[in-house]
Amino acid sequence: MVKHDGSQQDPVLLSGRDVTTEIGTSRRPPEAEEELRRSWAGLLRAYEPPDAALAGYVERVGARAAWTAIRDRRAPRSVLLPTAARTEQFIAAELEALIDTDLAAAEAVGARLIGAGDPEWPEAAFVSFLMAASNAVKNAAPPVALYVRGRRLTNLPADALSIVGSRANTAYGQRVAADIAMGAADAGLTVISGAAFGIDTVAHRGAMAYDRESPTIAVLACGIDRAYPVANAALIDRIAQVGSVISEYPPGFSPARHRFLVRNRLIAALSAGTVVVEAGRRSGTLSTAGAADGLGRVLMAVPGPVTSALSVGCHLLLASGKALLVTSAEDVLATLGERERVEAFNRHVGLEPLMLPTEPPRPTERHPTDGLEPGIAKVYDALPARAARTVTQLSVESAIPSGDVIAALTVLELHDLVRRQNGAWRRKRQSDQ
Amino acid sequence: MVKHDGSQQDPVLLSGRDVTTEIGTSRRPPEAEEELRRSWAGLLRAYEPPDAALAGYVERVGARAAWTAIRDRRAPRSVLLPTAARTEQFIAAELEALIDTDLAAAEAVGARLIGAGDPEWPEAAFVSFLMAASNAVKNAAPPVALYVRGRRLTNLPADALSIVGSRANTAYGQRVAADIAMGAADAGLTVISGAAFGIDTVAHRGAMAYDRESPTIAVLACGIDRAYPVANAALIDRIAQVGSVISEYPPGFSPARHRFLVRNRLIAALSAGTVVVEAGRRSGTLSTAGAADGLGRVLMAVPGPVTSALSVGCHLLLASGKALLVTSAEDVLATLGERERVEAFNRHVGLEPLMLPTEPPRPTERHPTDGLEPGIAKVYDALPARAARTVTQLSVESAIPSGDVIAALTVLELHDLVRRQNGAWRRKRQSDQ
Repeated sequence: MVKHDGSQQDPVLLSGRDVTTEIGTSRRPPEAEEELRRSWAGLLRAYEPPDAALAGYVERVGARAAWTAIRDRRAPRSVLLPTAARTEQFIAAELEALIDTDLAAAEAVGARLIGAGDPEWPEAAFVSFLMAASNAVKNAAPPVALYVRGRRLTNLPADALSIVGSRANTAYGQRVAADIAMGAADAGLTVISGAAFGIDTVAHRGAMAYDRESPTIAVLACGIDRAYPVANAALIDRIAQVGSVISEYPPGFSPARHRFLVRNRLIAALSAGTVVVEAGRRSGTLSTAGAADGLGRVLMAVPGPVTSALSVGCHLLLASGKALLVTSAEDVLATLGERERVEAFNRHVGLEPLMLPTEPPRPTERHPTDGLEPGIAKVYDALPARAARTVTQLSVESAIPSGDVIAALTVLELHDLVRRQNGAWRRKRQSDQ
Repeated sequence: MVKHDGSQQDPVLLSGRDVTTEIGTSRRPPEAEEELRRSWAGLLRAYEPPDAALAGYVERVGARAAWTAIRDRRAPRSVLLPTAARTEQFIAAELEALIDTDLAAAEAVGARLIGAGDPEWPEAAFVSFLMAASNAVKNAAPPVALYVRGRRLTNLPADALSIVGSRANTAYGQRVAADIAMGAADAGLTVISGAAFGIDTVAHRGAMAYDRESPTIAVLACGIDRAYPVANAALIDRIAQVGSVISEYPPGFSPARHRFLVRNRLIAALSAGTVVVEAGRRSGTLSTAGAADGLGRVLMAVPGPVTSALSVGCHLLLASGKALLVTSAEDVLATLGERERVEAFNRHVGLEPLMLPTEPPRPTERHPTDGLEPGIAKVYDALPARAARTVTQLSVESAIPSGDVIAALTVLELHDLVRRQNGAWRRKRQSDQ
């Protein structure tokens, strides 16, 4: 269990009660806000996310109506089904008491509860679940609300980059993850990850290396009042101070195994792009990658030595064409550029293949004749390193007519690359000058 | 200069004169064969390859007619132009004397001369230059003839794989190149490379690790009687003994810089696919890759650490979508498979994007509930590691109706994963059994 140290945090942003006051400045009266917040808490407790039927119902009728209908067992069968196990053992008053408990537990760690209609609700991040549903993406339903500790969520998913990878990682993966996280945060992006050991930890730390606002967000697979892994409790607290920590699970909920996969869809949805730094063949990280791909986000992977088991997952993503190859923060920023985002969307809806633009391959290493016309370079190449040749000899060697050889030699002489010697020509060395 | 050690080589295959005799068993009389061979030698000496006009002319009128027309200055202007510098300084008798010299020099190192119409001429390798021309590929003209030392050329490009890379290479690149070369040769492919230091050398050596016929072919950028680099003379001789060495340059010609790029198109053309193992940002190796891509061959690249300058070229090829990612000989063989070859062709002619099939990402690491239905696994996950839970508690925790929880517990009990304890359930540990 982590504890909220209120002294170091902004009470307006971090306390659930104060957030209510803040939202209360909108058109809704404070009592309506309170009721809405209680409904979100009730909904989050009533089912195990994700559930497309329930999410759709909440969107259609609103959180308050949805919650009371579920609590009072008046909701449609498709919604009562996923909520029965957690609601039908209790009478309404017991359910409301559970809500009190959850909201108090959240407030105890400085967490607030947000949902659709709240100014900081990342609506844009969840629109794509509609597209995803038609693409048969697993876990394709948005959360109905989120517990949040720390800074206000802004510009998600546009200004966020997810960096994910194996808990087991190599020194190579750590270095690359830190470099990309630092570069992304320095460029103004918020780095999102899962607070796990390994690549996640390095990504959060790298992003916090610069002193800027909201450098990083951790999305948990357990209640907002818990820290998993426990050894990362201090890291998660620090993220809540300078950035944000998010969970769609009620306080106290444990990080059950399937919740990591469900949480991974949020990491993908909340960011414009996801970079997989290191992942084994069966890494859970690949579910984040699958979600990013299915949600039409820009999916990127870092290649590594083919001899490393922890790069196998990355290479599978790259070989399958699902992920774009990135080698640095610069690559990531370029790939997230506007044009690429449009192309990723096109790919998502099947319009055309996505190709990362790149510099055309350039020929060979630096050479004295770089920049000269090929014909002129051929005449230079026809001269041996340390012997003289006549125009006729050069013409035969290069297969270039004598007149053109003479013209080429004139150009080469102007470039200080050749010199005459007894009616013949030879290469000019640096020592000649 | 390398010398032919006739004692270790098959005279029928290796001597130019004996090849003539062999070809003489076809319909053409021996004198016609001799004239054809002299024409090929004259043509190779008359111009600096590649030249599309000259190659097209030779294909249209035949090598003999083309050579005499060039020698006697009766050829079309487009053909006289690239041949003027090397022919107009000599009378016909002098040119014929040069042919004598070239053929004698070739024979001295056990090389023969082949061209269109010769049974071992790799016609199929050069058909694609027609396609390439329309795709504006650099150096897009086939050779008009080739000097060959060693084994007969067979099944090119179908049964050949090019492995190329930087002269400067890392231990990583060496290991991967050797692995791929050994695996490809073991699977019956002929490994083609350029006999340069670095990756080329490792590729040739790796291919020769198995005792099989024609494991490797070296394509030189200089005359067939020269060894470049000189330190690889012994390697080149060994390749000529067990495999083949090829050049489109007359004997004695030096490895001028531009000839490496021109030679690279032959490496690409003579193989079904090209693997780039390591290449810097400006590596000459990228010209082989460009030719393979332009000629509709399967282009593959091996990823490496993003921290290695010698993997930058590979990553550019992969990021641009030009190359397919391969990590092993198995990958290469799968990628060269029939379906992929068809797709590469489709991509070449713009029909559809090329995607390498791959296993779908699998979720997370091994777990006791792997293979069980998700709902059953959720019930298992809802059980804490070391405490018991009632059916009702499990139903609330997992959000699964009590009836289904009981059914799931029955399945879990059958799988020996849970046990009853005082009316509740707990996980069964190995020590319980």
